[in-house]
Amino acid sequence: MTQVAILGTGLIGSSIALRLKAKSAIPDLEIVGFDRYRSALQAARKIGAIDRAFDEPERAVEDAALVILSAPVLSNHWLMDRIAPVLQPHTVVTDTGSTKAATMRHAAEVLPSQVAFVGGHPMAGKTETGAAAADPALFEGARWVIVPPRDAPERAIDAIAHIAESAGAEPMFMDAEEHDAYVAAISHLPMIAASALFRLARASEAWPELSLLAAGGFKDSTRLAGSDPSMAYDLIVTNRDQIAHWIDRLRGGLEEMRERVLNVSGEEDLFKLLAQMEFEYAAYRNGKVGREVESTLSDLPSFDIGSFIMGEAIREKMREITRDQDERVKERDARRRERRDV
Amino acid sequence: MTQVAILGTGLIGSSIALRLKAKSAIPDLEIVGFDRYRSALQAARKIGAIDRAFDEPERAVEDAALVILSAPVLSNHWLMDRIAPVLQPHTVVTDTGSTKAATMRHAAEVLPSQVAFVGGHPMAGKTETGAAAADPALFEGARWVIVPPRDAPERAIDAIAHIAESAGAEPMFMDAEEHDAYVAAISHLPMIAASALFRLARASEAWPELSLLAAGGFKDSTRLAGSDPSMAYDLIVTNRDQIAHWIDRLRGGLEEMRERVLNVSGEEDLFKLLAQMEFEYAAYRNGKVGREVESTLSDLPSFDIGSFIMGEAIREKMREITRDQDERVKERDARRRERRDV
Repeated sequence: MTQVAILGTGLIGSSIALRLKAKSAIPDLEIVGFDRYRSALQAARKIGAIDRAFDEPERAVEDAALVILSAPVLSNHWLMDRIAPVLQPHTVVTDTGSTKAATMRHAAEVLPSQVAFVGGHPMAGKTETGAAAADPALFEGARWVIVPPRDAPERAIDAIAHIAESAGAEPMFMDAEEHDAYVAAISHLPMIAASALFRLARASEAWPELSLLAAGGFKDSTRLAGSDPSMAYDLIVTNRDQIAHWIDRLRGGLEEMRERVLNVSGEEDLFKLLAQMEFEYAAYRNGKVGREVESTLSDLPSFDIGSFIMGEAIREKMREITRDQDERVKERDARRRERRDV
Repeated sequence: MTQVAILGTGLIGSSIALRLKAKSAIPDLEIVGFDRYRSALQAARKIGAIDRAFDEPERAVEDAALVILSAPVLSNHWLMDRIAPVLQPHTVVTDTGSTKAATMRHAAEVLPSQVAFVGGHPMAGKTETGAAAADPALFEGARWVIVPPRDAPERAIDAIAHIAESAGAEPMFMDAEEHDAYVAAISHLPMIAASALFRLARASEAWPELSLLAAGGFKDSTRLAGSDPSMAYDLIVTNRDQIAHWIDRLRGGLEEMRERVLNVSGEEDLFKLLAQMEFEYAAYRNGKVGREVESTLSDLPSFDIGSFIMGEAIREKMREITRDQDERVKERDARRRERRDV
């Protein structure tokens, strides 16, 4: 029998458990679970994600060959402190936390040297949280970041890659600092932006009206403001500098947009920017990612934007904007002439 | 026979047409259509949104009792210029554009005085565009803003309210300036933020990696970067000041978040903010909108955040953060004592 212990039986932990039960090649698999919150543990048991539930993390890992820490980052550190004294030698430990550098340091500090820790982060999630929302297909097609410490034994890295692949994800190896910089840009910054957008609207005296008018665009843009506060807190305090750096960059990007919005004589450039962005966004949403990005880049003509994208509509719009600008220039010249005539 | 002319047969125009055909009480309804782009017109014809297609807007409105302008804002203005000379007296004209003040002014300037113009803006949309994505249920439960000019005849206002209700939406009356200020906050600012977020990540040298790692949160947060560039351009240039104002406020909100992220001694406040935000966001997503907001506000205790929301989990987390802070203070004091001992 091979025992896997899931510590933290929320959405991610329970989804991994369900998937391993359905698809992994591990013979005679038993999944045991622990969660600090009895209700979370019961929910995981109820949906059949775990075979046995334990009240203490130490008890859950006693016979485990593999331990998956799937709580928020700081809770994972607390779990490591608890299980460190009782882990069998050669147990492989991994995590699914949102940041990696702090966790790699914590593992190196507290786990016994015979225990192999390999960091992990499956890049998937959804709006709902908790075991009740668990879905064995959650990781299908997603990237699963794997962060092996320098001294990690090959067998431990293979074991985590096997878990990722069993879950339907593609392993992506990188170091902890690289990971934390990347997720700051595509995960933590969007969460901060969503929070700032929601708080602004929510704090407005007009919120009763705004909340009625807000449609799908607002809901999508602000969805991450509803992130679990413990998860959000833990990732912020373990990735402060990277997040602050990207907030600064976003403030700069917004300043640039503001200038473009107010620049009455830069309308042609504004439209070019919007058209090019829509083109690039469509490419991204249609799956031009990773190495395929390069081919998209070479598709992009540098200036003659009228020659691509929606073709007819874009060219027509460019003609209109240019004509409008010409007309304004004519009007301005006419006014100047009038003044001179007076 | 009652003829309704839809000028601009994209997602919104075609969805209105499909819905009116299925559900309106208008007897003997015929829907005719015009679009500047032949392909858009053909698509609307193909899905049965319009009964007849016209190559010229003047021809489409000749016998129309009601004209719905459902193109981007500036195209609606261009359409008004074209149809103004041929409209029957007593024709009612409305629009579905994203901004209202510029359009109300344009209508007052160019439409004949016997023609009644009432502005409109159904607050609904989706990621896909064009008639092929049309959905008669698109407006179900949404608000449909109606902006009647001061001199609008009662029968014209009633007609537009009837259209909104037939579409399954709830009419919401307001003036143009009020509308433009509100949509700047909940629609235009989110679009600008999504654009800035996407452009930052897209411009990064690490975009090949970022695009692979980006999951649902990034996709939702940046969805509006894929907005139709003509629609986006038109709403920006007709609502510049309001949009710039809200960009400034968002920059301020981000600056505040940045300070909180970097403030190592304000961790308790950071967690309180995240927990309170998640509580308010959940209330919003669960339908606490409009007047119901007031009752939510009175549910909120001012400080003792530990007593509500997820209860157990939040209280536990607060205890941890406080304990961690206490420990840091102790460690710092210990270090100071050591230095003194030396």
